[in-house]
Amino acid sequence: MPVRTIDVRERVMAKNDELAADVRRRLRAAGVLTFNLVSSPGSGKTALLERTLADLGEELAISVVTGDVQTQNDADRLARHTDRLVQAVVTHGACHLDARQVSTALDAIDLEHTRLLFIENVGNLVCPASWDLGEYAKIVLFSVTEGEDKPVKYPKMFQQARYAVLSKMDLLPYVPFKVERAMDFAHQVNPELTFFFTSALRADGMDEWYAFLRSRVGRGSAAAWA
Amino acid sequence: MPVRTIDVRERVMAKNDELAADVRRRLRAAGVLTFNLVSSPGSGKTALLERTLADLGEELAISVVTGDVQTQNDADRLARHTDRLVQAVVTHGACHLDARQVSTALDAIDLEHTRLLFIENVGNLVCPASWDLGEYAKIVLFSVTEGEDKPVKYPKMFQQARYAVLSKMDLLPYVPFKVERAMDFAHQVNPELTFFFTSALRADGMDEWYAFLRSRVGRGSAAAWA
Repeated sequence: MPVRTIDVRERVMAKNDELAADVRRRLRAAGVLTFNLVSSPGSGKTALLERTLADLGEELAISVVTGDVQTQNDADRLARHTDRLVQAVVTHGACHLDARQVSTALDAIDLEHTRLLFIENVGNLVCPASWDLGEYAKIVLFSVTEGEDKPVKYPKMFQQARYAVLSKMDLLPYVPFKVERAMDFAHQVNPELTFFFTSALRADGMDEWYAFLRSRVGRGSAAAWA
Repeated sequence: MPVRTIDVRERVMAKNDELAADVRRRLRAAGVLTFNLVSSPGSGKTALLERTLADLGEELAISVVTGDVQTQNDADRLARHTDRLVQAVVTHGACHLDARQVSTALDAIDLEHTRLLFIENVGNLVCPASWDLGEYAKIVLFSVTEGEDKPVKYPKMFQQARYAVLSKMDLLPYVPFKVERAMDFAHQVNPELTFFFTSALRADGMDEWYAFLRSRVGRGSAAAWA
């Protein structure tokens, strides 16, 4: 039985990779730079997106696909900050988005008038690491209220990510969290990881994050994915 | 193919339920009250257990089985606070513990000299909800630095739990979190849920948690599980 389970799983994953390649071709062709945002539940993906949408939503023509296990709460929160479409996907118990769900969600989005797409994955540090959604890059969030050793406890996620956002920096004075230690752990599993430091609540550190997004999107459709 | 996937999954779950029933019989027979501690990564399961072990480890004869995806970091942290055995289970990528892993871990524990057992599950609000480990009850943690709507976003986990611990209460003055709102959400999905409020960092609110553990364990082996 274990062999059969693996067999089914491998076929499901192979099918997902095919669909993800289709999604990637479609997004590249449309010149839509796409990030897959992953983290624990409660690390602040939605809060980061709320503020980013409010500040840069129009300027960078941002659209969002947001995945949630049972509710549309995140989509509803985001929709308050933008007139742009926020496309909700309810996974009905699954611990990650898959490429088919993203492909279907894209049908509802005006890709011609989108330059930057965020896919807000289900809050989970295990499952989403294995599922390619056709994104340009994964961005992993973790907050200073979590353990510094998250990167070594969930190495696959931090290996898969190209960028890391350390969130809730405003709480740093009140928690026993050493930023340098967390970065050391992260670079142990992925030396290439680029860090941002944010507080979506107080807007500290958002400038560098915004500069990064502006610069990536500003390179134009062809160069954006390079 | 979807049908086949479900078929395999159902057989795996049925096998797990059988093994969990065995674990439950074994723990009841040994008079070991057992809690399955579940939460997001970073909600503070290990911190709560560290303090509980330091303060009550000997008095209540506590043992711990702790599950981690890739490391033994949590087990190492806990071992610093107790001479009692902390049994580590590495799930090698899986997002939850299963009853077979708990059964094997129990072989290494002196159940005769244990009255209270904590199983620290993998940090995940989706997967562990579906896996019975043979525990007396599930305790779900979530912290005031997470969203108040966690219970409605992850209803299955909050329905499965009998107790909830709201952790990191010391950070309440610095975050936009309304305790009453979080409790309302929780009671929407599970009206029976009993709450504790803790700060393992500052020891606030630990008294009530300790009183609860003392009272449950004090009822003796037969009554403890009632």
